[in-house]
Amino acid sequence: MDPIVLLDNLWVMIGFILVILMQGGFILLEAGSTRMKNAGHIAGKTIFTLGISSLVFWAVGYGFIYGNDVGGIIGLSNFFYGDASTADGLTPAVDFIFQLAFAAIALTIAFGGFAERAKLAAYVVFAILFSAIVYPIVAHWIWGGGWISGLGKQDFAGSTVVHLTGAMGALAATILLKPRIGKYNKDGSVNNLPGHNQVFTALGVLLLWVGWFGFNGASTFGVADGFFGYVSMNTQLAAAAGAFAALLIAWAVLGKADVPSMLNGALAGLVAITASCAFVAPWASVVIGAIGGMLCFFSVRFFEKRNIDDPIFALSVHGMAGAWGTISTGFFATPQLAEMNGGRAGLFYGGGLTQLGVQIISVVACGLFAFIASYILLLITKSIIGGLRVSEEEEIMGLDMSEHGAYGYPENVQPTLDNSSERTGA
Amino acid sequence: MDPIVLLDNLWVMIGFILVILMQGGFILLEAGSTRMKNAGHIAGKTIFTLGISSLVFWAVGYGFIYGNDVGGIIGLSNFFYGDASTADGLTPAVDFIFQLAFAAIALTIAFGGFAERAKLAAYVVFAILFSAIVYPIVAHWIWGGGWISGLGKQDFAGSTVVHLTGAMGALAATILLKPRIGKYNKDGSVNNLPGHNQVFTALGVLLLWVGWFGFNGASTFGVADGFFGYVSMNTQLAAAAGAFAALLIAWAVLGKADVPSMLNGALAGLVAITASCAFVAPWASVVIGAIGGMLCFFSVRFFEKRNIDDPIFALSVHGMAGAWGTISTGFFATPQLAEMNGGRAGLFYGGGLTQLGVQIISVVACGLFAFIASYILLLITKSIIGGLRVSEEEEIMGLDMSEHGAYGYPENVQPTLDNSSERTGA
Amino acid sequence: MDPIVLLDNLWVMIGFILVILMQGGFILLEAGSTRMKNAGHIAGKTIFTLGISSLVFWAVGYGFIYGNDVGGIIGLSNFFYGDASTADGLTPAVDFIFQLAFAAIALTIAFGGFAERAKLAAYVVFAILFSAIVYPIVAHWIWGGGWISGLGKQDFAGSTVVHLTGAMGALAATILLKPRIGKYNKDGSVNNLPGHNQVFTALGVLLLWVGWFGFNGASTFGVADGFFGYVSMNTQLAAAAGAFAALLIAWAVLGKADVPSMLNGALAGLVAITASCAFVAPWASVVIGAIGGMLCFFSVRFFEKRNIDDPIFALSVHGMAGAWGTISTGFFATPQLAEMNGGRAGLFYGGGLTQLGVQIISVVACGLFAFIASYILLLITKSIIGGLRVSEEEEIMGLDMSEHGAYGYPENVQPTLDNSSERTGA
Repeated sequence: MDPIVLLDNLWVMIGFILVILMQGGFILLEAGSTRMKNAGHIAGKTIFTLGISSLVFWAVGYGFIYGNDVGGIIGLSNFFYGDASTADGLTPAVDFIFQLAFAAIALTIAFGGFAERAKLAAYVVFAILFSAIVYPIVAHWIWGGGWISGLGKQDFAGSTVVHLTGAMGALAATILLKPRIGKYNKDGSVNNLPGHNQVFTALGVLLLWVGWFGFNGASTFGVADGFFGYVSMNTQLAAAAGAFAALLIAWAVLGKADVPSMLNGALAGLVAITASCAFVAPWASVVIGAIGGMLCFFSVRFFEKRNIDDPIFALSVHGMAGAWGTISTGFFATPQLAEMNGGRAGLFYGGGLTQLGVQIISVVACGLFAFIASYILLLITKSIIGGLRVSEEEEIMGLDMSEHGAYGYPENVQPTLDNSSERTGA
Repeated sequence: MDPIVLLDNLWVMIGFILVILMQGGFILLEAGSTRMKNAGHIAGKTIFTLGISSLVFWAVGYGFIYGNDVGGIIGLSNFFYGDASTADGLTPAVDFIFQLAFAAIALTIAFGGFAERAKLAAYVVFAILFSAIVYPIVAHWIWGGGWISGLGKQDFAGSTVVHLTGAMGALAATILLKPRIGKYNKDGSVNNLPGHNQVFTALGVLLLWVGWFGFNGASTFGVADGFFGYVSMNTQLAAAAGAFAALLIAWAVLGKADVPSMLNGALAGLVAITASCAFVAPWASVVIGAIGGMLCFFSVRFFEKRNIDDPIFALSVHGMAGAWGTISTGFFATPQLAEMNGGRAGLFYGGGLTQLGVQIISVVACGLFAFIASYILLLITKSIIGGLRVSEEEEIMGLDMSEHGAYGYPENVQPTLDNSSERTGA
Repeated sequence: MDPIVLLDNLWVMIGFILVILMQGGFILLEAGSTRMKNAGHIAGKTIFTLGISSLVFWAVGYGFIYGNDVGGIIGLSNFFYGDASTADGLTPAVDFIFQLAFAAIALTIAFGGFAERAKLAAYVVFAILFSAIVYPIVAHWIWGGGWISGLGKQDFAGSTVVHLTGAMGALAATILLKPRIGKYNKDGSVNNLPGHNQVFTALGVLLLWVGWFGFNGASTFGVADGFFGYVSMNTQLAAAAGAFAALLIAWAVLGKADVPSMLNGALAGLVAITASCAFVAPWASVVIGAIGGMLCFFSVRFFEKRNIDDPIFALSVHGMAGAWGTISTGFFATPQLAEMNGGRAGLFYGGGLTQLGVQIISVVACGLFAFIASYILLLITKSIIGGLRVSEEEEIMGLDMSEHGAYGYPENVQPTLDNSSERTGA
């Protein structure tokens, strides 16, 4: 084979490995952001989430996304890795696993809405349905030759396809599951239920940051012109700006430099630049990341006040920043990069409102579909399992014990201490 | 140099880095699966394990494996990186470090049998002997031109050479060391001594999963045809199937979806596919992984009932699944892949019993040798050190304090609290 | 583009990713080496450290290092990624982010001197000044065409530029901040303030070890001759020797195989070989690493006795071992490798004292400059912020609460328990 083709495959292979590493970031981010009594459940769940999404992707997901298009809505061939072939010059297996890794990330994001109160069985059923239906349909629309792909949408690595879709699944779940015990008082005031381990959360953010160079960088699908370096530079600058902007805004608003806010800001910068990293200048990446970080800070407070309990901040980090990032190219896309990577230049470069309109339409269409489909699938799940949420007693005890029969930290969490760990929510 | 040769070297270099990363997975897996009072010891030990195995490999290991063959048993040249040369087209240094990383993994697996009760000095002496003698001889037999290599054995990335050999070292150690205090009651009934941190264990599994794409993927020794992608796809599917199958079997048998069982299932899927990933179809990878995951679940209970205390499940995860994975190609190897990568097609593809016989012979021969050699070396170690096991008092106090003079978690574990942490074993 | 050029870019891109991963190692190393009440602060700080250093590097750092040279002292062009171009054949963006990652490591090392007692605001201001001024000037002198670069100095991947510079920043900080409460008794005797989590520390060392193959390996700036493999082999052997030598020396001197000492030994081996990995034989790497590991052990005790409180051992691991590693090529550089990579052969290969003199001069010059500049900038910071150190009450409470308003481990650390966590320092 041609060395360039092998290079393309090697880089996308590395990208796949980095995106799988992001699951390690999610283990730490999610476990660190929640309480000790649920930590084993949340960490362990990430491993079988990767298992379920991989098997479903193999069985039907890849076929629904990249199979022969039916009506612009869905693909219907190439199930079980049959007749796999690729249009992007990659070998079928490399293309397959790279796409698989993205599907798994979307499901992991959606889990955020289930955290600390959903029945394990309910999540398992939803995981299968979401991986089989919701994610593949959105991915087909944008990346698989569906109805949006013809509009010239700019979503380089999946601000919409992966992050917004996952966040909409989380939104449906958190609305149906209702807030955690202790999150809201009877008078409507809000309690903070702090995560148990900020070292985990910070390391999780770092692992996600590292993995993002596979997520964005390898979405070039090859090494041509060394463009992966440009994309990665923009990614680095946006993450940096998101972290620093969120640090400053938290310090200014709260009077203390709140650590979780700053960490969410870094992630929001990464999510925002995911759509735009191939379309904008470095200075615009700094702006997009900084706005992402600040938007996320206010978004967390917005949802919290509206009785939407989002333990791992999926709606703000992946939803709000994902939408912002997708729309941002409508402002900042440069003529040269738009010509190279598709779509038109943004408003600030004289491109007018066309690209901005395409971006907004696709965010709204995909977001609505992902929310409604997830909502319906959760209602189906509810009727299969007989309820989505564990009992009040089980929730107070913790899901480690109720769903898995043992605490994740058996030397730190004791059954008799449970009430004291509820202290912060009293 | 030719770009393809450089690409081959680059991919194997990346594989080396990923296999070193697996040691991070082992730090977390092993520390998380054991108790707080031994956590600093176990985590720290992994670092000097990597140190000892690297130095021994440099001094004699590489020479014993790849030096000039003597009687099909051992190599005897190229010590201290002298006259290093390679038959696989890689530069000597790249080949050297990739092989070094595998040797270190085998020793890390063997440590499993020492956990929570062996003297530090005993492990250090054994580590040197195992790295100098046991691993190199098995590796020479299969990969270095020894007597098994001519039989057409299929062990792509080392289900036998690395995983089974390491597990047999662990078996010898755990038999000689006898069970931990509190594991068995006087009436023979078994206590569960739960690991102290499931977040560590889950993250450890994820890091191992990530590293495995170097372990298996770079065992292609190059980028030809992008075959690393196919191998990695099979690896991903087997791990996914192992995790999901173990989740379901644990849920069905225990009534609770036990987290450690599910995590072990993912690893068992990875170990099993290590031999077969280059020889089988994707659907067969799913089957091999799922069987590996379930086999591991029952194997853990089998050993536990026979008074064999295996704290980190090395015998089941690396031993049983390693043997199963090696034998599985005797059933599932496709004619096309067998032709491409060596050996014959498996029983299910009309290949008859020949390949199955070769696989079984080599598992039995290597397993027996590794067990007997490790057992003898441990007896030698015992006479050098004057006993393999710490005193009862030291074991109850924890090895962090007894062997290293300080607790790994000094703010969580206090000398006066030791007895309470024995509670679960009472 | 030519496949070789793309390969060069790909390898340096991978190196960038690995060096960013090292920040995860620092999160764990630093948090694990300090106390629970400061863990969220320390872990979170690493994320915005990466943010600040990235933004400053983009704004002015890259220009000061690689811009048009003015008087051998500093570069003055190419700010804000303007007119970026490279002399090494890499695409500008890849070169930019690889250099950025190194700048961030130097700042992270410098933080060591602030740990557990500096005001957050003081560190933020210093971080901006250090990233804008101290690091770029040293890097310009050696790597950017400054006055030292013409002398034939051998500092392959930055033992001096990154490690020594960072350590001198830490030294200035720790002198000005003075020791932590409880470190020294009134009679001058020393208390050990043990870090709270050795599993974190060990995993941190492993992640740094892994990342170092990017740090050293990709400092080849390309794949020519597969030389990255040779460099990485030397890196592996030096780390292994550092870990094992430190294990033995700690065991011999202390009577117990102290875990943190062994872990520091591995890092010291890595730091030491950073300058020399491209210039020496494998056996010399073992010697350099082993000396580095032992030197670090004694250095820690040397500083401790002189009332210099260095919580994360930056002075010994990065300073002493960095200086030793830079000087070591003056002894061990082989004629062949010196010819290939610059400079002259070392003393032991008949190269005389010339190279040794160049190495010593540059260590002294860069070390002095970095220390004095950091010291002055800290005095400026002090006058801006109104003091560098938190109050005694805040320090006892912990910086998680005083600087960020919440504990990093809210379920483990309670305000009322603070005094008991001071126990070890009483």
